[in-house]
Amino acid sequence: MVSGRENVRYLSGFTGSNSAMLIFGDGRATLYTDPRYTIQAGQQVDCRVKVAKGELMKALVREFDRSGARCIGIEKDHLDVGTMQEFAKSLPVRASFEPVAGIVEKLRMVKDEVEIGLIRKSVDLNSAAFDAALKRIKTGITESDIAAEIDYRSRRLGAERPAFDTIVAAGVRAALPHAQPGRGKIVPGMLLIDMGAFREGYASDMTRMVHLGKASGRYKESYKAVLEAQLAAIDSVKAGVSCKAVDKVTRETLKKFGFDKEFVHSTGHGLGLEIHEAPRVGRKEKTKLEAGMAITVEPGIYVEGWGGIRIEDTVLVTGNGCEVLTPTGKELVEV
Amino acid sequence: MVSGRENVRYLSGFTGSNSAMLIFGDGRATLYTDPRYTIQAGQQVDCRVKVAKGELMKALVREFDRSGARCIGIEKDHLDVGTMQEFAKSLPVRASFEPVAGIVEKLRMVKDEVEIGLIRKSVDLNSAAFDAALKRIKTGITESDIAAEIDYRSRRLGAERPAFDTIVAAGVRAALPHAQPGRGKIVPGMLLIDMGAFREGYASDMTRMVHLGKASGRYKESYKAVLEAQLAAIDSVKAGVSCKAVDKVTRETLKKFGFDKEFVHSTGHGLGLEIHEAPRVGRKEKTKLEAGMAITVEPGIYVEGWGGIRIEDTVLVTGNGCEVLTPTGKELVEV
Repeated sequence: MVSGRENVRYLSGFTGSNSAMLIFGDGRATLYTDPRYTIQAGQQVDCRVKVAKGELMKALVREFDRSGARCIGIEKDHLDVGTMQEFAKSLPVRASFEPVAGIVEKLRMVKDEVEIGLIRKSVDLNSAAFDAALKRIKTGITESDIAAEIDYRSRRLGAERPAFDTIVAAGVRAALPHAQPGRGKIVPGMLLIDMGAFREGYASDMTRMVHLGKASGRYKESYKAVLEAQLAAIDSVKAGVSCKAVDKVTRETLKKFGFDKEFVHSTGHGLGLEIHEAPRVGRKEKTKLEAGMAITVEPGIYVEGWGGIRIEDTVLVTGNGCEVLTPTGKELVEV
Repeated sequence: MVSGRENVRYLSGFTGSNSAMLIFGDGRATLYTDPRYTIQAGQQVDCRVKVAKGELMKALVREFDRSGARCIGIEKDHLDVGTMQEFAKSLPVRASFEPVAGIVEKLRMVKDEVEIGLIRKSVDLNSAAFDAALKRIKTGITESDIAAEIDYRSRRLGAERPAFDTIVAAGVRAALPHAQPGRGKIVPGMLLIDMGAFREGYASDMTRMVHLGKASGRYKESYKAVLEAQLAAIDSVKAGVSCKAVDKVTRETLKKFGFDKEFVHSTGHGLGLEIHEAPRVGRKEKTKLEAGMAITVEPGIYVEGWGGIRIEDTVLVTGNGCEVLTPTGKELVEV
C-alpha cells in the first residue's frame, strides 16, 4: 500500500489530496480516492481507479482481502499511528502487515529525462521570478512586499505555488535561517532571499543575497567565505561521491574562514516532487550520489545580532561532475 | 508528547517547522526544536526551550526518563509509524506509551476572543482580496492569472500565505471540486473561486461564483438551489445543534431541488490554525456545536460536462445562532 502523496503521484500521476494505491507483486495497481476526485482521477490516471465513499483504506483492504494475499507493506513514513491502528483492525485475520520505508523514495532519487526537464523549467522560472522581483527591491519596501512580489511573478510565469514559504530576511533577521517575512520597512544592509517554486509538480530552490547600499568589509569577507564553501562543495559533487563527503567539503572550507559554529544546518537536500526529499546532503548521510540526482548546495552562516548569509543553487549530478542548473549569478550584489 | 505542529503552536506560540513538546501532569512544559530555530524559539516561546542537535524525540525521551514518569501519551494522528517505532525503541524499559488523539484539537475547537479576532481579520482580508481581484476578471484572462492575482492581493493585505491552493475553475472545470487553476483563456460562463488566507496563523475560507456574461436559466436555478441550501444550513447553526443536523439541512434543501447526488462532500469544517480542523460538519459527525466554534458552510453541486456551483462562508457559532463572518455578498454576479 502506497500512502505517501508524492509517491502516489510519482507512480500514478494523480495529484489529488486524498489517495492511496494498492500494488500487487505482479504489477496490478489500483488507485483509491474519494468522490471529490472522481472526474480528475479519470483524467490523470492510467491504472484502475476506485472511488471510495467511506475510508479509502477500508476499501483498499477489501480488495487486498479478495486477492487472497497474505502480507501487505505499509509506508511507515507516510502513515500516522492512528490510521495504522485502524488499518490493522480492518485487515483479515489471516493477513499481516509490514512497515517499510523508502522504497518509492529510492526510485524517486534518480530523475529520468522528463523529470530533469521539468526541474530545469522550474529552476529557470524561479530565477526569472527573482530577476523580476529584484527590480522592485529598494529601501522602504517591506520583506513581506518583496515576498508577495516574488510569489506573484512566479505564479505569472507558470508556477502552481511556492515550493515553501518564501524567505525574505533583512539585516539582523537574516540570522534566522527560516525567517518569516516581516512588515517593517527595509533599511540599508543585507537581504537574504530563499525562494522556490513548484512547476508541473517539480520543485526549484535558490538562495541569493542582495545588499542595499554599500556593503561593509565584514559583510564582504563573510560573503566570500560562504561563496567559496559553496563553490568548493559544488566542485566535489559527482556520481560515486557520498553526500557526507560533500557536506565535509562545505564545513572544512567554512572552518578555514573561522565559520564552523555558524553553519547550523546541512549542505543541502534532494528535490523533485517534494522540496525536501532524499538524499540529504548532511554530515551523516552515506548515500552515494548518482547521475540524475537533483540536489541543493546551500551553505550558510548565521550570527545572532549581526545577520546571516546563505548561497544556494539547484544542481544536477552527472557522471563526471555536476551541472549547476540555477542560472542566476553569484557575484556580490549591491543595489 | 505533543508532536502536531499546530498543536505545538497553539500551546506554545512556536511557529517553526520542526518541534515537539513534553508536558507533565503538573503543567511543566518544554519545547524541543533544532538549531535552525534557536533564536526564533527564544523570541516566541515562554516555556522552557531545548535545542536538540540530533533527533528531537530522543532528547525529549531523555528528559522524560530523568523525570521518573512511567507513561507518555503520543499524538497518534501526528506521529508516523516510523517515528513511533524509533520513539518506542528509545523509551526506557520501565516506561510505556499510549496513543491518544484529539486532546489539543478539542481545546482548539472553541476559539477564545483573541482567536476570534484573528479569524475575523483573516476573513475580512480574504474578502478584500476577492474584491480587488474581481476587478481584473474578464474573458481572455486565465484561471491561473486570477489565482495569482488573488494570492498577490492577499499577501499585500497582510496574509502569510494562501490557506490552500486557490481554486479558480471556469465552465465545465467547475465540476471538479478541487480543480487546479489552468492556463487556458476564460470564455463566457460560470467561474468558481474558492480562496482562503492565513493571517497571523489563522485561516479564512470562502467560495464565490462569478458569471462572465449573461447566465443561463439552468445556471440561475442551480445557483438559487445552492444558495437556499447554504442559507438554510446557516439558519440551523447554533450552540447545542449537532454537526450532522446542519449537514442534513443542507442535503434536504438540495434534494428539494433535485440535487442530492450532485453534492459530493460535507457541508463544512472547522477552521483556525488549520484550514481543516475539528469539527467536521458532515453526515456522521455527532459533535454538538458550541459558542466560539468557527466553521465553514459550503454546499456545492457538481455535474460532469456542465460545471459546478459552490457557495461558502466562514461562520462563528454563538449561543443563540451564528454570525456569518464573511462580508462578501451572495447575490448572483454577472460581469
